[in-house]
Amino acid sequence: MTSTQQHLTPVDPARLTEVLDGRWAHVRRDARDQLGEQKYAPVYGETGAEARERITGLLKDLAATGRTRLGFPKAYGGEDDAGASVTSIEMLAFGDLSLMVKAGVQWGLFGGAVQLLGTERHHEAYLQKIIDADLLGCFAMTETGHGSDVQQLRTTCTYDPATQTFDLHTPHESARKDYIGNAAKDGRMAVVFAQLVTQGQRHGVHAWLVPIRDEAGNPLPGVTIGDDGPKAGLNGVDNGRLSFDHVTVPHDMLLDRYGQVAEDGAYTSSIENETRRFFTMLGTLVRGRVSVGGSAGSATKLALQIATRYGDQRRQFAAPGEDREIVINDYLVHQRKLLPALAKSYALHFAQEELTSTMHDVQGADDVDEAAQRELESRAAGLKAANTWHATQTIQMAREACGGAGYLAENRLPALKADTDVFTTFEGDNTVLLQLVAKGLLTGYQDSFGSLDSWGKAQFVADLVKETVLERTAARGLIARLVDAVPGRDEEVSLLDRGWQLRMFEDREKHTLEGAANRLRKGASNKDNKLFDVFNDVQDHVLRTATTHIDRVVLEAFVAAVDRTADPAAKALLAKLCDLYALTTIEADRGWFLEHGRLTPARSKAVTSAVNGLLKELRPYMSTLVDGFAIPDAWVQARIVSEEGPRQEVMAAEDARVRAAHGEGSAVDTPDATAVDLEMAPAQ
Amino acid sequence: MTSTQQHLTPVDPARLTEVLDGRWAHVRRDARDQLGEQKYAPVYGETGAEARERITGLLKDLAATGRTRLGFPKAYGGEDDAGASVTSIEMLAFGDLSLMVKAGVQWGLFGGAVQLLGTERHHEAYLQKIIDADLLGCFAMTETGHGSDVQQLRTTCTYDPATQTFDLHTPHESARKDYIGNAAKDGRMAVVFAQLVTQGQRHGVHAWLVPIRDEAGNPLPGVTIGDDGPKAGLNGVDNGRLSFDHVTVPHDMLLDRYGQVAEDGAYTSSIENETRRFFTMLGTLVRGRVSVGGSAGSATKLALQIATRYGDQRRQFAAPGEDREIVINDYLVHQRKLLPALAKSYALHFAQEELTSTMHDVQGADDVDEAAQRELESRAAGLKAANTWHATQTIQMAREACGGAGYLAENRLPALKADTDVFTTFEGDNTVLLQLVAKGLLTGYQDSFGSLDSWGKAQFVADLVKETVLERTAARGLIARLVDAVPGRDEEVSLLDRGWQLRMFEDREKHTLEGAANRLRKGASNKDNKLFDVFNDVQDHVLRTATTHIDRVVLEAFVAAVDRTADPAAKALLAKLCDLYALTTIEADRGWFLEHGRLTPARSKAVTSAVNGLLKELRPYMSTLVDGFAIPDAWVQARIVSEEGPRQEVMAAEDARVRAAHGEGSAVDTPDATAVDLEMAPAQ
Repeated sequence: MTSTQQHLTPVDPARLTEVLDGRWAHVRRDARDQLGEQKYAPVYGETGAEARERITGLLKDLAATGRTRLGFPKAYGGEDDAGASVTSIEMLAFGDLSLMVKAGVQWGLFGGAVQLLGTERHHEAYLQKIIDADLLGCFAMTETGHGSDVQQLRTTCTYDPATQTFDLHTPHESARKDYIGNAAKDGRMAVVFAQLVTQGQRHGVHAWLVPIRDEAGNPLPGVTIGDDGPKAGLNGVDNGRLSFDHVTVPHDMLLDRYGQVAEDGAYTSSIENETRRFFTMLGTLVRGRVSVGGSAGSATKLALQIATRYGDQRRQFAAPGEDREIVINDYLVHQRKLLPALAKSYALHFAQEELTSTMHDVQGADDVDEAAQRELESRAAGLKAANTWHATQTIQMAREACGGAGYLAENRLPALKADTDVFTTFEGDNTVLLQLVAKGLLTGYQDSFGSLDSWGKAQFVADLVKETVLERTAARGLIARLVDAVPGRDEEVSLLDRGWQLRMFEDREKHTLEGAANRLRKGASNKDNKLFDVFNDVQDHVLRTATTHIDRVVLEAFVAAVDRTADPAAKALLAKLCDLYALTTIEADRGWFLEHGRLTPARSKAVTSAVNGLLKELRPYMSTLVDGFAIPDAWVQARIVSEEGPRQEVMAAEDARVRAAHGEGSAVDTPDATAVDLEMAPAQ
Repeated sequence: MTSTQQHLTPVDPARLTEVLDGRWAHVRRDARDQLGEQKYAPVYGETGAEARERITGLLKDLAATGRTRLGFPKAYGGEDDAGASVTSIEMLAFGDLSLMVKAGVQWGLFGGAVQLLGTERHHEAYLQKIIDADLLGCFAMTETGHGSDVQQLRTTCTYDPATQTFDLHTPHESARKDYIGNAAKDGRMAVVFAQLVTQGQRHGVHAWLVPIRDEAGNPLPGVTIGDDGPKAGLNGVDNGRLSFDHVTVPHDMLLDRYGQVAEDGAYTSSIENETRRFFTMLGTLVRGRVSVGGSAGSATKLALQIATRYGDQRRQFAAPGEDREIVINDYLVHQRKLLPALAKSYALHFAQEELTSTMHDVQGADDVDEAAQRELESRAAGLKAANTWHATQTIQMAREACGGAGYLAENRLPALKADTDVFTTFEGDNTVLLQLVAKGLLTGYQDSFGSLDSWGKAQFVADLVKETVLERTAARGLIARLVDAVPGRDEEVSLLDRGWQLRMFEDREKHTLEGAANRLRKGASNKDNKLFDVFNDVQDHVLRTATTHIDRVVLEAFVAAVDRTADPAAKALLAKLCDLYALTTIEADRGWFLEHGRLTPARSKAVTSAVNGLLKELRPYMSTLVDGFAIPDAWVQARIVSEEGPRQEVMAAEDARVRAAHGEGSAVDTPDATAVDLEMAPAQ
């Protein structure tokens, strides 16, 4: 018997919040207490220039609170607490998202690169100023021509031993740095990524700390700065373009933790393989990707809170014999929109929390565990993709669920949607990130691809550490027990059996992975095939290995969170919500489960019935579930949430008065109103 | 053998355009010739006030071209050509969408209501001024409290025989008119919908023509005008709020085509049943819904054109042994994003063209055919939902497919996305529209619900005309022949057999419909069930009847279009694209087909393989397919489309120079670049 079979009882949302808050609860509580001010809320109808000005001011205010130093070394007033710094960004995402992104650029990307790619001399010279926002800077990696494949950047930085300086150069427009935050207006320096050339040899991508503007804010000689102009959202962030015309960069401005150039131009590095070195450098910057996933989660929760609270007050269409119209959250199709999204938000939150914790531990360890680092990067990539796509879909759904009101800026959803849209792209295009995840998973199968080696340079995934396939994540023991306890034939097991659900996710991942590996091996075994075609023909299958993997990771995190919930009522509710996450995920992919004999047709239909049953059970807890997010009212900033309830009460009173005056049965009943019953549906 | 088995040959896009242009080809050609001016293109970075000012100016320019009178009576300089007027709006949607919406409000909604709900005296007094944009007006139907269930509007308009005037009143905030275009700034009059009360009796919703501002633009006494403020998009449209504090409206301002009030207050109407009268009034306004669907289609085509052309030039990630990186349209997962969306855009275009034609004929007929009118409304509702959801999903996908560049206003996609977002809501929330479609379909089963009548007022769908279930739409004869020609057992039939595809769509619709009817009957047979619960418990199933129906209607329209294509090469290409639409639709719902024994697991997997095969065949024709849309370059207004190609050429030349200088094999190969093969994916 699983914990989900029980009847639900009233739940104190604070008990849910405790579970959600997790390891960095103190950071979350502090943010709720201190950052709920009106000034951190978004402002609508500004010009781009006004928005940028306001956000720059807020950035400085934020620095003054001291919160921005959490992730930096104690020597500079920080707390060396990577988890806290990421959680702090995640909490900022409940406010104006331009501030969150600008803070992420300043302290996460720019500051983080100086901290993690630089060495002592860079820290001493710049870290304090960066932490205090006295030196604003850019993270100039992406180029117009290379956003995903950043190993192929075309900017060059060539060492000249005669002058003991580097020559930084943009050879053509494709090599222009693009979409760079802090570039168009505020940045004084930039961490610029470029191909390092010394002694006539190229050594791959490295980073330099490069001044781009003088004290007065004018571009320095050789530096051309452009403006990316109006964007879909995030217009408080000054994204721009940087080009360098043979700009001289002093020798000591190379951020040389992973690669050094001696005065005579000799190149040294502790990591010989260029690709591995590049990925090691990128790996240190994983915080950015983790932050984007977490921030997408915050924005999604806020959208769900707005739509759920509105849906609890908004009424539309009359039911026969009732005085008042129906609350739109009572409609099955409205529940079908909101509740699975709520369940997924909880699920992703727990997975994200686990990721933050892992990141904190891996980065804080004395010894570098390369396997753990690669695993962390894969997890960060996968959850960034899952979180940000969930955000895009869910915020859109919430907008539609609020009808025309959802389209008005005063109801917050337009900004949430526009600002988060690019999250699926920045810090790595989601599709590319899924390929990264898939690559890690397929590494376990590299023996299958031995034949690829015979093609010379095709060292298929050979530089990556082997990952144990299907290694369980959270609460390993618990999950193993649950899976092992599933009795005999699937058909006899309840759909609400947690072990069965877990087994379905595991089984799907394993089968998908083996299938992809087999298809790759088969394609590779034919020597007439081009290597590109071998991969390309199964690219959809390869990406599925990543999504099925992420689904499992997320479910396991949810299961672990339910397990550690102390309050019995909260635990029962979360268990039910976990059922909903598991079954809606299975339902959405039931084509696969049916194709592969994992569901019979009858059982597949039963999944849909079970989902509808769960919606009915969870309906009374919708508001409890969003209350559990503990988003302070000051952050919600959606007028419909506060205005719709009172409006409905006034209307109900007036309707009653009219009924009494006219002696009619119901103010909302026109003579044959029930003839339109089938039109009952939520909207506007 | 079906036409799709043949090998594709080069296609002149003009041959595709001929098929797409259809019955109102002259209107489309005229728009391409005349409206391609820069001034109709969107402008970025404006303030809301600037945008409104500019769009108001363009509205007047547009009136001066004479194009806006196409749908009005010949007596007023028009052409009485409803189809041309809708097509004309659809073409405007390639320009700034605020202008399209403002034009839709002025001539479609406001002018259309005066024309179709008013009578001779209203026409004589106002139509010419409306056509010429000398009188700008509003369509004030939606209220803050009622957007979907507009039969329940709370604004009242009460006749007083003593003064022979109406008293128009907003009893509370829920009754405030909201989201009203032309209200916040430009409107001088409004068609206001309210509950008509006379002689102490209510007669349901009617419309009045009400002055709201004086010549100087100030609100008239008793009229309060608010501003909806900044919106997610369409900021050139001045949406606002109207409240009326016992405003006196002259007797002759009632738009009285369907309901008249005599001087003594006696009410008369040719339509006795209040609900039927209401829906008849709404029915005349179907043009708006048709226009929104068509406009969504235009915006979607533009987004697909931008993403497809960019994807044909943009390169990312190196293939082993190649000098240049891979064009992102060559990646399977990129094709998986763009090509099914392109196929669906073609499919929806043909269905929309058929709808426009039907609307034109039904509205132009001398006799009112009520069955045809209801069928038209259902079709318009369903295709509006399908077109606008396709727009939301596809424009989002196109944005992501263009990476960071897709987020910049200069590349057009942000405005396309923000402006069209509300299309899923206005002119009817899509979910509510699906219920309307489902209601029409279930009418054929009303006998099954006889038992509901015993509950007194529950006259289930009784006022609607019976529609023949599964009546075939376009090219009836052709489709019957194709379906009947499918041999024996499904397993033996090619997935590319058009008859089999059609049968799958038909069969799914029929089964879904019968299942929903059975469940409703079963629920209703239990007297302990509340009527609301009976419907609500199967609401998801009921909505599926609508979506499966729309899918079939769309496929049949595509099949008919292929059939009437004269050019053999174009016909073969469209047939292949039709296969892709049919098979991706089946693939997306293969869970259902497997559950219901319509696909075996093996055949279901074969559908996925067949889709991938079609993608490979269609890849060389992606640009031909978007060229077929014949969108003038002046309308595209996305810098990446023109800039990316030359940038790639410059980079290739520079790479070749570097290779020659360094004597290297490939400028893009770092020593072990192929180790990251699996990361090959499209992005930015």
